[in-house]
Amino acid sequence: MRKILLIGAGLSTPSLIKYLLDNAEKENWEVIIADVNTDLINERIQGHPRAKALKMDIFNDEQRANEIRHADIVISMLPARFHHLVAKCCIRFGKDMVTASYVSGEVKEMNEAAKEKGIILLNEIGLDPGIDHMSAMRVIDEIKASGAEMVSFRSSTGGLVAPRYDNNPWNYKFTWNPRNVVVAGQGGAVFIRKGMYKHIPYHRLFMRTDRIFIDGYGEFEVYPNRDSLKYREAYGLDDIPTMFRGTIRRPGFARTWNLLVQLGLTDDSFVMEKSEELSNRDFVRTFLRYERNISLEKQLARYLNISEDSHDMYKLRWLGLLDDTKLKLKNATPAQLLQKILERKWQLEPEDRDMIVMRHQFIFRKDEKLKEIISTMVVEGKDNVHTAMAQTVGLPVGIATKMILNGEIVATGIHIPTSKLIYQPVLKELEEYGIVFSEKEGDYIIQS
Amino acid sequence: MRKILLIGAGLSTPSLIKYLLDNAEKENWEVIIADVNTDLINERIQGHPRAKALKMDIFNDEQRANEIRHADIVISMLPARFHHLVAKCCIRFGKDMVTASYVSGEVKEMNEAAKEKGIILLNEIGLDPGIDHMSAMRVIDEIKASGAEMVSFRSSTGGLVAPRYDNNPWNYKFTWNPRNVVVAGQGGAVFIRKGMYKHIPYHRLFMRTDRIFIDGYGEFEVYPNRDSLKYREAYGLDDIPTMFRGTIRRPGFARTWNLLVQLGLTDDSFVMEKSEELSNRDFVRTFLRYERNISLEKQLARYLNISEDSHDMYKLRWLGLLDDTKLKLKNATPAQLLQKILERKWQLEPEDRDMIVMRHQFIFRKDEKLKEIISTMVVEGKDNVHTAMAQTVGLPVGIATKMILNGEIVATGIHIPTSKLIYQPVLKELEEYGIVFSEKEGDYIIQS
Repeated sequence: MRKILLIGAGLSTPSLIKYLLDNAEKENWEVIIADVNTDLINERIQGHPRAKALKMDIFNDEQRANEIRHADIVISMLPARFHHLVAKCCIRFGKDMVTASYVSGEVKEMNEAAKEKGIILLNEIGLDPGIDHMSAMRVIDEIKASGAEMVSFRSSTGGLVAPRYDNNPWNYKFTWNPRNVVVAGQGGAVFIRKGMYKHIPYHRLFMRTDRIFIDGYGEFEVYPNRDSLKYREAYGLDDIPTMFRGTIRRPGFARTWNLLVQLGLTDDSFVMEKSEELSNRDFVRTFLRYERNISLEKQLARYLNISEDSHDMYKLRWLGLLDDTKLKLKNATPAQLLQKILERKWQLEPEDRDMIVMRHQFIFRKDEKLKEIISTMVVEGKDNVHTAMAQTVGLPVGIATKMILNGEIVATGIHIPTSKLIYQPVLKELEEYGIVFSEKEGDYIIQS
Repeated sequence: MRKILLIGAGLSTPSLIKYLLDNAEKENWEVIIADVNTDLINERIQGHPRAKALKMDIFNDEQRANEIRHADIVISMLPARFHHLVAKCCIRFGKDMVTASYVSGEVKEMNEAAKEKGIILLNEIGLDPGIDHMSAMRVIDEIKASGAEMVSFRSSTGGLVAPRYDNNPWNYKFTWNPRNVVVAGQGGAVFIRKGMYKHIPYHRLFMRTDRIFIDGYGEFEVYPNRDSLKYREAYGLDDIPTMFRGTIRRPGFARTWNLLVQLGLTDDSFVMEKSEELSNRDFVRTFLRYERNISLEKQLARYLNISEDSHDMYKLRWLGLLDDTKLKLKNATPAQLLQKILERKWQLEPEDRDMIVMRHQFIFRKDEKLKEIISTMVVEGKDNVHTAMAQTVGLPVGIATKMILNGEIVATGIHIPTSKLIYQPVLKELEEYGIVFSEKEGDYIIQS
């Protein structure tokens, strides 16, 4: 019997846990699930005979060391900032480790130590990062193998609500951590286009959208996502003239969101005085000019340079921004107050289903001609536990864990799943779960 | 003979040094001037018999202690972040100290220790902070003494170029630290208006100008300056419904500066890749969309939503933003690159003179009627050493130092010059140097 220690049983883990337990008998696994909240674990495992719930405080060094020492492999689904605590223990006891998070600076430094111990620390094998790396590298490797030259790579992902449940004027609900949505993009973005670096400050980010179309799902918009440059090296595309990563929303989201940014409502840098006394209206008013004898609605429209009967204004009213509802949040930043307003309106109902959309565009030169491949994945949630997010984050982690245990992934040190030996079998098994990319290839036609 | 130790002989000190040396004989002072650059000191003192130049490294604890021990009073004109090193020594040896800088958190904590030693640490006695506190408190105290109630206080200051030398399309030159100008306002601003807090994010700050007029000097504009709320307590105006502090520029400055902000050129949060290879044009281009077959000038105008023949575009072209000049600055942030471009154009020539403009508006209720006092100060530079900035920062420091030495200021602990005992004699002596406020009082008429 092989022991898998999974640390963290949060929102992203139900499909991972199901995968591990569904395979436990056949693979002869014992699955130990550790979290500070054992009720949560018990809800996920439903008394499964191969599962064991363990109450764990991640700051208890002794307990952590003891559990990792007795495991055959460790999966960390903790918030990213805690992985290094787990990784250190894994190195100490020579245990392989899998995470769905970005390689942090602290983890990166453990490469040599992991190699010496002969273990793998496999990271970024969730959705984004994860499935994005694997699905992109499969196509990039094929293009390169055919002797063609990559000239442009654009990749975008979005967590949205599934079309049938998409019933509000923003075409958006919180399918994931609301705070991340409210402060998204605050560092601005950088990418490269035709060999030229492009920097976009935060206050311009949501004005720089592109349109995309996805068969069967219609039109979406994409705004630039953080630093696209660092992926050039990871993907072996150091000299590619165009490299862009984006976030997908339904059309019009970014435009109206930008109005909230312009007002200053997403600011997370200062605490508002007497925030607990504010109503939604008061909150908005602090960001407007003082004007006498003019309704707040008129002031807002004028300040934002939009018409009072515009769809933008309707969306702002619909959020309740102009309501008298009290916010009742002490020592809050504008971003925290806005989050509270949004949570009342963008909440995912129990019957709602989420949706993940991922789309890559590869442009390459072959035989003096420009060609294009569009690769698209759409996954809808099964229910409100096995959401599209939980499936796409959790399943690749589970599959990779199985492959490491079975000796199908043989590598040491810090890795992300950009090599064929990893992405090929993982993508293949993901298809059994309906996580499939459809590809369209054709001549690349420059739009005029 | 009393010894004055002045630490720091930078741009803000020539008028201070002249004041100290002009009074040295009569007051029986020896003036020891310490700086890391002795050439600079010698240039300022010109062999004056009462002056002594001292090479000092502020990080040399032993030398600093030794010099402070033998002084009767210490003036620190170092960059604000170093004052606490000097203040600690002053407390140790029981010496009074004077600075023109904001009270830092570190200095604030020394209040009790200074009181125990029976010494005063007098701060914020330069221009802004300094003359602003003193001139405002004089009027506020008079208004309160007359039994009237303050309902609004608005105060603005600007460092500009004197009208005769104001010969560029921005009506602006660097009369002070260029970096502070480039990153000004990046934390946004907050003030209170008719009892309502007003928050303005950075990317809106330069759109929120007010117009003011100053007799003999014409029209200016004012944009909000940082946190205006903290002055309520310092000025004894805790419950005042309107409190605003602003920065003064000539009309149109903020509008065009805002275009640079909107582009992202003032961003100081990241280093640009290969910044040393960029020309001005390349630099601007990285912040624009990619577009084929369109001139950079057209792209820029379109992106900023301004007309190509507008005065705004002329001002941007005049800066050389669209030139092929190489920037040659390694590992630079956008703000650093912009500063380099601006320094070529906004440099103060040797024959140029600077100008300080300060204006307070006090509105108060007396006998059921609203009254207004406008208090204005304009100071022009004498030459390119005794600039308006050097005079207005240095002279109050010199006067306060004399008053402490002569027992005319008797107080202990941390102080700023908001009490009548300090501001009255300092303002009086400043008048001898042409630093005068003119006041106009009348009924306050609400503009419709």
